[in-house]
Amino acid sequence: MSARFFEDFQLGESWESPPTPVSADEIVAFARGFDPQPMHTDAARAAAGPFKGLVASGWHIAALSMREFVLSGGYGETPMVGLGIDELRWHAPVRAGDVLIVRREVAELRRSTSNPTHGIVRTRVTVRKQDGTLVMSLISAGRVPARTGTPDAVGESA
Amino acid sequence: MSARFFEDFQLGESWESPPTPVSADEIVAFARGFDPQPMHTDAARAAAGPFKGLVASGWHIAALSMREFVLSGGYGETPMVGLGIDELRWHAPVRAGDVLIVRREVAELRRSTSNPTHGIVRTRVTVRKQDGTLVMSLISAGRVPARTGTPDAVGESA
Repeated sequence: MSARFFEDFQLGESWESPPTPVSADEIVAFARGFDPQPMHTDAARAAAGPFKGLVASGWHIAALSMREFVLSGGYGETPMVGLGIDELRWHAPVRAGDVLIVRREVAELRRSTSNPTHGIVRTRVTVRKQDGTLVMSLISAGRVPARTGTPDAVGESA
Repeated sequence: MSARFFEDFQLGESWESPPTPVSADEIVAFARGFDPQPMHTDAARAAAGPFKGLVASGWHIAALSMREFVLSGGYGETPMVGLGIDELRWHAPVRAGDVLIVRREVAELRRSTSNPTHGIVRTRVTVRKQDGTLVMSLISAGRVPARTGTPDAVGESA
């Protein structure tokens, strides 16, 4: 897949992952590495915790939403640089055996004010379970090179 | 470490991690699992990428900031439930050999309006490199049980 420039992105363009199961082993493996709280690592102790059972780390779901997009090809060779995340919300717990669908939609496109040879692409990411329950949402901002240095550069084609 | 209630948190209380090195192996291992882009997984291809070398996935740094806090004891047995993240910004790349210090500070405390038996704790997390460079910042919100059902409950001690 080739590189895309800022001008190639379309407002509203979207992508959806295949159904992606999450196992107890995956929940525990991520949490042992990065969020070793009993509700994520120990089914017996998790049963006495706030979710009455083992649940995935919220950071696991965020990372999984990135993984699925990249594995699908993402934006190809586009050298997008992640700037940040806003309004990340964990709406509902993810348990072993849940099957997730990640969706990503281009929500805003604007020329970078600090660096007009680049554009800012904001995407809305949602993760839902097999029954449609929303489990996570966030807005991601990335910077990509533009074909033209300015939106209406004379003598350059867009 | 015992459980803390909402009333036990103090505005401005802070915690800082020990210096935490990040190796090329760790950068590649996280990225293979969750962000398999060449700039995170392949030093040779990363050299031709936007950062001119291997850099850690931003999600790796976010997850690492959680891991260090939990490993240090975190908020002990407090059944804090993560609600979300705001204003996450990746300010500078993290490269193999960098040594990170994570800092977490209680930035806001308020009673939950939807559920007055709980409180909302907002913390500001920053990650800096050995030379002081800020590499990531975010604001994290969590919900914890309160000792008293309402701030001024008659007949209950706070």
